[in-house]
Order: sequence, then structure tokens, then C-alpha cells
Amino acid sequence: MNPRVRAIAPSLIREVSSRKRSSSIDLGLGEPSLLPNRAHFDAAMNYVTERGVKYTPNAGDAALRDAVARHYAYPAMAGAGNVCITVGSQEAMYVAIKTLLDPARDELLVVEPCFPSYQKMATLEGVPIARVAMREEDDFGVDAERIAAAVGERTRAIVVCSPCNPTARVISSVAAERLARALERRAGEPVWIIHDEIYREQSFVDDVAELARIYPHTIVTNSLSKSNALTGLRLGWLLGPADFIEQAIKVHAWVTSCADTFAQRVALHVFESPGGLEEHADWYRERRVALLEALAHSGLRYITPEGTFYACVRLPSGSRSRNAAEELIERYDVVAIPGIAFGECMEGWLRLSWVSSPDRVAAGINRIAEYCRVVTP
Amino acid sequence: MNPRVRAIAPSLIREVSSRKRSSSIDLGLGEPSLLPNRAHFDAAMNYVTERGVKYTPNAGDAALRDAVARHYAYPAMAGAGNVCITVGSQEAMYVAIKTLLDPARDELLVVEPCFPSYQKMATLEGVPIARVAMREEDDFGVDAERIAAAVGERTRAIVVCSPCNPTARVISSVAAERLARALERRAGEPVWIIHDEIYREQSFVDDVAELARIYPHTIVTNSLSKSNALTGLRLGWLLGPADFIEQAIKVHAWVTSCADTFAQRVALHVFESPGGLEEHADWYRERRVALLEALAHSGLRYITPEGTFYACVRLPSGSRSRNAAEELIERYDVVAIPGIAFGECMEGWLRLSWVSSPDRVAAGINRIAEYCRVVTP
Repeated sequence: MNPRVRAIAPSLIREVSSRKRSSSIDLGLGEPSLLPNRAHFDAAMNYVTERGVKYTPNAGDAALRDAVARHYAYPAMAGAGNVCITVGSQEAMYVAIKTLLDPARDELLVVEPCFPSYQKMATLEGVPIARVAMREEDDFGVDAERIAAAVGERTRAIVVCSPCNPTARVISSVAAERLARALERRAGEPVWIIHDEIYREQSFVDDVAELARIYPHTIVTNSLSKSNALTGLRLGWLLGPADFIEQAIKVHAWVTSCADTFAQRVALHVFESPGGLEEHADWYRERRVALLEALAHSGLRYITPEGTFYACVRLPSGSRSRNAAEELIERYDVVAIPGIAFGECMEGWLRLSWVSSPDRVAAGINRIAEYCRVVTP
Repeated sequence: MNPRVRAIAPSLIREVSSRKRSSSIDLGLGEPSLLPNRAHFDAAMNYVTERGVKYTPNAGDAALRDAVARHYAYPAMAGAGNVCITVGSQEAMYVAIKTLLDPARDELLVVEPCFPSYQKMATLEGVPIARVAMREEDDFGVDAERIAAAVGERTRAIVVCSPCNPTARVISSVAAERLARALERRAGEPVWIIHDEIYREQSFVDDVAELARIYPHTIVTNSLSKSNALTGLRLGWLLGPADFIEQAIKVHAWVTSCADTFAQRVALHVFESPGGLEEHADWYRERRVALLEALAHSGLRYITPEGTFYACVRLPSGSRSRNAAEELIERYDVVAIPGIAFGECMEGWLRLSWVSSPDRVAAGINRIAEYCRVVTP
């Protein structure tokens, strides 16, 4: 078998999550606890009852591609030809990495802390990885100078997740401008930015930069998973310059052929419903207020979430996050994800999700605070 | 960008199909014209209304994996751990090729004529291809000796499509036994067979071998696309030995995460409905009777379909199939797929699908026969 596949380590996040008991307070979850809006499914049912479930073109249904492009209206990628509908943003990211990077020549730069999938995908493709860690003393805020300084001769693409899983930080307009200008000053072939915008509809501050508005060599990945509580629907999209999308469609075509026609009809109804993508946004804003109270009350050091549905808390100095996560499950019946899963720079931290009920979230945070008090030397 | 992606040629099948007019008789179609059974969708709707659309495990819903394994009950792959639910059989094949073959060392052997996706996927992965052509004088029947003789030192896997797109031939028990025994006689590491069984429910003869019953190093790919007229649902599966499936799940996890939860509920209902996978089988058997009449009446040389919903007809000696397909669209308003799309050995042939109404199919065949009479020297 392919040795690159054998070499892929199992997921630490899944490993920790799998130890959950039925009684556990689960702050490990990476998916909304809401139910999706049934109206979108009814629309899709009406369609398939009448028309069946035929293949769409590889790139996706023409009306959906157009609706996605018009919704974002990102400069230079505002037409249907700038969109490829994918099997969730996971396939969007996979296709982007596979299309952009030549394993024989190029390197992917990953901004840490980040979700581990970018590295795993690149490794599966034989694409070398470089890492640049944001600084704990800045609460892991996006530091454009650090990123720009880490761009090497072989760097052909940079993945930026904003709002960021796990840090819940966003990239500001100033940071985005600085990053774009620094990349533009470089000689030679352009360096691409892949902007993972999957938590775009969970933004809680005003200044959230969209890199596609600022830097022409930007590829955007997104999906309905987080915005509409449709993680299992596997419906996402890639946005980018037309010549990139043309190549990406070929990869997508040979990997999965096309996205699910039923799911594409759900998505078309979301995009055609006024405010469809933001239908859960208020729910998250309200939950965040309760979360901030619980965090302030806990006495823990935490990073104020600017986006996503995560919050990161600091363990006592010297703690190993993996051990802490295991002890929290065993002794406090709380599931949290160890920071080390998101990069070395996040060792000593935990990522908590706050999609459970406010009471459960507050109780979980209190148990973590108690654990920290007990283990503090 | 990745030069391997740039090098992928556009699909000849799609290119020819795209010239279709609204008036055309379309014998190019690679998908059923039936509507799917709505009962399966109602079951999925009930599920998602109550439970939402969460991620399933990467390998798929446990009950679905179990149902798939029990349905086939292939020896040594009859448990849930032998199944990975995928995004159609396209992703199943992609994952199988990517998991089995080390691009630095291994080669994929492709039995031609065949659908072009196997080669395209391998090329995308940098896996070298070898081809073995079945013989026109045998109506492209599966010749185990020819395949075995083509297995080289680097051959690590062989793709066999039976019932075969495009030839509509199936592999017989005798041929399957001969192939298995020849592979077993080889020294060194085993050679895998990837059996593409996507047209399994469109079989019209009694002797259709299932390689997974005969040869232990078999991987099976399949989906609901053809059996249940659900091409657009993108729901397929991989069956194989547990240690292969364990590795394949990792590839699947990083490429697409998991298959659509809604589509998995549709599939579970199909598998739990007695005869669910065969619900369209009678329709195809009846249509085939009409097709055989039309073929016999046409005077064309044809291959009697043993499976699938295709039939292959011979063009006059010296004809180029691509030119013929173009002339047929331009001058006779019939879409048929040129044989050259399926390998050099099928030059001079056309692949016709017979999922349109019997009248339209017969009319299309008559127009092709007329074209052949006109161009015959």
C-alpha cells in the first residue's frame, strides 16, 4: 500500500472525543448543536420528486454557482466561473492544495495554531509543509509580519483560517493589508492565500477582513456546515480566479465527480432565502454573551472569541494539554480538545466549544477551572 | 499550479455530449432516465427532521456499513469493518487507487475497453498505467490469460469493470477463476483486483462472477447511482479486507471527511427495503428485449449486452469513431459516444445507451445504421 497513507497518524481530536461518556459535558464538539431549517430540505424534496437526482455538471449546478458568486461579490471572482461546488469545505481545501501546489517544487505555509487538516492533506499529497506560529502573548492574533517573514523561496501558498479554529481570533483589515502588501512586494511568482472562511457567519466583531477583497491571489473555501448547522450535508465551495477554478474543477471531477444534487438544491434555497446564511447568527451572538460571563467568572485565562464557536483557555504553567484533556475526561467528565492538536505553540491550552446549553457550558468551564486550581503547584 | 493537473485533458465523452441539441436522440447518456423511489427520500427526511444533519463517522454510519456488508456477504469482507461509505463510486475508486498504489514503485493495470476515469485518476496521482486490450474478435470478452500475461513486475493492482462500461460484457466464473489462479501463482507481493461493480444490478445473464468470492485480494467499488437512478446522490462504498479499509478510511477522511448524512439515510432505507437495490432491474430487462430487437433489425454488427445499459455497435471498416460521432450529431441528430474514448482497441465502435424510450432508442439505432450505409465505401 501507499506508504504515505500508512504514515498518516490517527486524529488526536477524534481520539480524545471518542473517550466521551454519555454523562460527559462535551466541549469538544466541532459542529453546531442546532437543527437545520427544514424549509431548505422541503425545497430540495420538491425538486427531486419532480426531476429526480441526476448528476449536475462537475463544477456544480449553474444557478448555485451563480448564487454563491453573487452573494460574496468578491472582486475578480464574482461570476459563476469563479465557483466550484464541492463536497464540503474539506474537499474544497483538498482540491485547492492539490491544484495549486506542485509537490516537486512547492511548499505550503501553515499559520498556527490551526486545524490539523491542512497539514494532513498536504502530507498525503507529498507537499512539504512550513509552519509559522502566532504568539501566545498576542493571544495568537494574526501577525502579518511574522507570516510574511516566514514565506520562503518554495512557499507557493499560505493557509489562513479566519475566524480561526481554534483560537477564535479574526484577521483585521490592517493585518490583511499588511500581509497582502508584503506578498505583493515579493519578486517572482505570486504566493497564493487560501482563506478558510468556514466560520464567516460566526463573527462577533466589526473588523473582519476578507482577503479576497484585498489580495488578488486569494482562494476562498467555505460551506454550509457551520453557518446552517449542516455539517453532515457535505456541501461547500471554492471561490477563486477563473483560471484556477478551471483547473480545480478537473481535480474535483476525478476525485468525486460532483457534489450531491439534493444537497445543491438545499444550498440553492439557502442562498435564495434572504439572510439564509445568517439564519443562526443571532443564536451564536446570544450564546456568546453567556459564554463570556462564564469565562469571566471562572478565573481562567482565556482568549475573547471574535468569531467561531470556540474559546481557548490556558492551563496552569507546565501542563501538558493532552494529559490535562485525559484527566478532565476521567476525573471531571468534561471533554475539551488539547491545544497541542493545533500546533506546538498551543501546548498548555484547551479548545472548548460552546454550542451546548449555556448551563452545560458554564458547568464544564467551572470543572476545568477547578481542575486547574487542583493541579496548580 | 500543479503540472499534473494542467496535463489532464478534458473529457472526450463530455465534449461529445455537450454538442447535443434539444431535438437530439441522446444515446450518449451515462445515467438512468428513471425517477428514483421517493420512499427512500421520505425516510431520510424523517430522520433529518428529528435528528438534524450531523457528521457521521468518517467511514460512514455504522448501521449502513453493516447493512452493506451483510447484503453482499462476500467472504472475508462481511463485517462493518470491511466497508467505507464514500462520495459515489467515483470517490471509492479514487480512494482505492490512492490507498493501494505507491507512485514511486507501483503500476496500475487497466483492462480496456474501459471508462477513462481509472487512468485519469492514476495519472493525477502520478501512478504509472499499463493497459491490456481485450480482443475485438471476442467481442471484447474478458480474457483472463491476456490479463494475467500483462501483469508486470510493478503491477500492484488491476481494475476490472464487470458488467463492463462500455462493452456490456461480464466476467464469467471460468474467466474469474483463471484470473485468480494465475495471480495466485505469482511469487512476491499479491496483486490486487479492484472490481468496479457499479452495473451489478443490470446483469442479464446467469453467469456473472463476483471476484470478491473468488480472489482474497479483491477490493469492490459500487454505489446507488445506476441501481436506483441516484447518480446525483453521490453515495457509494468500498468493500475490502479490514486492513485495507482501515487505510482507505484515512484517505477518505482527509479528502471529503464523510459522505452526506442525508444520502446515507437514503441508502440505509434502500438496503433495509427487501429487494431495494433491484427495484429497477425488471425495467432494464424489459427495455433490453426491445433493444435487442432494434439491434437485430438494424443490420449493424453489435455486441449482445450481458449487463449495463449500453450496447456497442461497429462502424464500417476504416471509420474514425470520433468523426463518426460528430457527423452523427451534425447530420443525423443522434448522440453516441465514440469508442476511442474507452481505449485504442475500441476505435471503430460506438457506445450507445438505451435508457431513453424504446421508440427513441430504435429510431437512433436506425439513424446510425443509415449513416453506416451511406459512408460504407
